[in-house]
Amino acid sequence: VSDILDAEDGKQLKLILKKLHAADTADLIEQLSPPERLEVLRLLKGHIDPEILTYLDEDVRETLIESLSDKEIAALLDHLESDDALDVIEGLDEDRQRTLLKAIPSQDRALYEQSLAWPDQSAGRLMRREVVTIPGFWTVGQTVDYLRNPKTETPVFFYNIIVVGPSHKPVGVIGLAQLLRSARATPVAKIMNKDVTLIPVNMKQEDVAFLFRQYGYVDMPVVDESDRLVGAITVDDIVFVMEEEMNDNILKMGGVREDDFYADVMNTTKRRLSWLVVNLMTAILASIVIAVFDAEIKNVVALAILMPIVASMGGNAGTQTLTVAVRALATNELTTSNAMRIMYKEVLVGGMNGVIFAILGGILAYFWFANPFIGFIIGAAMIINMVAAGFFGIFIPVTLEKLGADPAVSSSVFLTTITDVIGFLSFLGIASLVLF
Amino acid sequence: VSDILDAEDGKQLKLILKKLHAADTADLIEQLSPPERLEVLRLLKGHIDPEILTYLDEDVRETLIESLSDKEIAALLDHLESDDALDVIEGLDEDRQRTLLKAIPSQDRALYEQSLAWPDQSAGRLMRREVVTIPGFWTVGQTVDYLRNPKTETPVFFYNIIVVGPSHKPVGVIGLAQLLRSARATPVAKIMNKDVTLIPVNMKQEDVAFLFRQYGYVDMPVVDESDRLVGAITVDDIVFVMEEEMNDNILKMGGVREDDFYADVMNTTKRRLSWLVVNLMTAILASIVIAVFDAEIKNVVALAILMPIVASMGGNAGTQTLTVAVRALATNELTTSNAMRIMYKEVLVGGMNGVIFAILGGILAYFWFANPFIGFIIGAAMIINMVAAGFFGIFIPVTLEKLGADPAVSSSVFLTTITDVIGFLSFLGIASLVLF
Repeated sequence: VSDILDAEDGKQLKLILKKLHAADTADLIEQLSPPERLEVLRLLKGHIDPEILTYLDEDVRETLIESLSDKEIAALLDHLESDDALDVIEGLDEDRQRTLLKAIPSQDRALYEQSLAWPDQSAGRLMRREVVTIPGFWTVGQTVDYLRNPKTETPVFFYNIIVVGPSHKPVGVIGLAQLLRSARATPVAKIMNKDVTLIPVNMKQEDVAFLFRQYGYVDMPVVDESDRLVGAITVDDIVFVMEEEMNDNILKMGGVREDDFYADVMNTTKRRLSWLVVNLMTAILASIVIAVFDAEIKNVVALAILMPIVASMGGNAGTQTLTVAVRALATNELTTSNAMRIMYKEVLVGGMNGVIFAILGGILAYFWFANPFIGFIIGAAMIINMVAAGFFGIFIPVTLEKLGADPAVSSSVFLTTITDVIGFLSFLGIASLVLF
Repeated sequence: VSDILDAEDGKQLKLILKKLHAADTADLIEQLSPPERLEVLRLLKGHIDPEILTYLDEDVRETLIESLSDKEIAALLDHLESDDALDVIEGLDEDRQRTLLKAIPSQDRALYEQSLAWPDQSAGRLMRREVVTIPGFWTVGQTVDYLRNPKTETPVFFYNIIVVGPSHKPVGVIGLAQLLRSARATPVAKIMNKDVTLIPVNMKQEDVAFLFRQYGYVDMPVVDESDRLVGAITVDDIVFVMEEEMNDNILKMGGVREDDFYADVMNTTKRRLSWLVVNLMTAILASIVIAVFDAEIKNVVALAILMPIVASMGGNAGTQTLTVAVRALATNELTTSNAMRIMYKEVLVGGMNGVIFAILGGILAYFWFANPFIGFIIGAAMIINMVAAGFFGIFIPVTLEKLGADPAVSSSVFLTTITDVIGFLSFLGIASLVLF
């Protein structure tokens, strides 16, 4: 494709892209360098598959949309389902949102404006507005005829029909398979599932994803504050939420606030800076601990050589515990009712691993420096630090969760600060008692 | 529930659990302590909802199944769909699998044995065997009548009907919504989607999940080596695969090989040990580097105090880059075609952050030790290490992926080893040149 772009061969490009699924075209555009991406857009002008927009990474989409007029975007959005179009609009800054909304026909605009009023990352932002509803007094036959009527507007894909009562409140849900299996004369009220979880429009998307995962939902009604039907969420949206959640969790644990794979050098540097500043301060704290023992280090340089081992082993053992804990918190498996039991277990695990590495570290230090005291010191410090790692690996994320903070973000700074400080303090402290 | 267990009140327990969804009951059982879990099982004996088994964590399920006879398990499995039952059987050790299979009716047994012959974590293990198929010459009316016939056995939930040609090869797929929208006289061949991705039975489950995510599939046919239909995969299975993948990735990046939240102390210690051993060796490597400069440290103890800062900043900057890279590799966004561009970007980001922290670190060291040389040394070492962190943060995972290794597992050991070694080496090395 890069070659075609060099040749400015718009026809050939259209031919290739026509054969691809919109998701693949989006991937292909993402693979190109930023100037090449704009070149593709220029060559395709007026022939862009609107679906591509929904699949592009937000950073990439932003740069492409900047080069399009409000009218052009409005025309593209008109071909998308309401939830996908909303997703594109959401990603724009507020000024652009305002001018773009003016270019959209007033009926759709009202819908988008209502949706944008719901909180970011809520069910309201996630749902599709187009739903298939029928009244509760219909039969299966009436429903099938209604769907077969070419005048009935339905989304291309849907899996449940929502049965509504007066004032558009959902009273039940019928799966299409169930509908197809039933005789025409059957009243829908008889076969519908009345025990339906209604998703409040303000529910956070990660909680919605939890419900879908927990109960295997595929298509659920969303209701407003007065229990009136406002839309539906299908499992394909949940798959995206889960992907987002998965990425977010991995990135956060790695000290990255948001995905910057497609961001430019300046933006990436800026986004990563704050985490590194926090880390600098914790590193300084550890250095202050070391500075307390500068006389001891001057006398026995072996201490300076070995001290990173104790800190590093504690940090790694603690990270293992922390990782399991953060994951278990995210899936609601670690709760206040079992936190004590798990903490007790992790302290034991830390203690057992501590003993093992105390022996290994002790032997190493003994042979390296031909000094049994140093072997004893590193062993004792190792046990202390690994037990502390087990304890704080659970205590920190559970406490952060209780305080309403996200344990995935800040747990690991706190943890490594503690394991560094305890590691240096125990090793150098015991050394100062034993050797001097 | 713990209170009810203390009172051994089986009736009350059944009453409570009856109101809960199987997934919630499974969660509840997981929350209990191991002896309480067996107590629940004892009190419920013979009244267990088989669905619960499918939702239990593997470690918990194993302990529960150990206390059940093969006959009891076989009876439970009989109520599950084939993919869920297979999931339970898979988790058992081989001896138990053999004796259990003997207790299962021969027809089902043959199915399970065939499924178990497919590789672990493949489409064959994931798929449901029950599929709804129709011949290509039917009309919509015939299909609807077939589904309405009470004698037709269909899974409770399905979203596509698979149209098969001679020798059971899929020729198309019809969504239920499409079927319902069409007139009775329409031939299915006219409305079916012929452009169907057939999933090979040996495809890895993470690749299947990628296809579902990329193209928004909900229900896809699985075929054997000769393109014959053998089953179907629905999106709810994919949601579980994604959850597993998400957990795996987070755990692996944190140095945990497999989830041990429900494992006992001994097993947890064992599973975490190997990673810690690797880490001990890399920590020793870093110590050897420090040992080279023991004379310098003896003379200027400030070096021992400051050296962990350089190593730690490099480690953190590298981990940020690595996290973004591992995620982008997992979603096929980082490829050989853009690896060079991304590496160049990360080196620049590392350089820019390096300059910023060189200045901060330099100022700190200058004021702390009233020595401009030490400020210069830490600044220069910081830039070197953060540029190296940016480079190796991409180079290591991309190289591991090329060699066929999982970049999520071992990237971070390699990376922190390198940033530790380069951090100590550059800081102490420059110090030895400048100060001595």
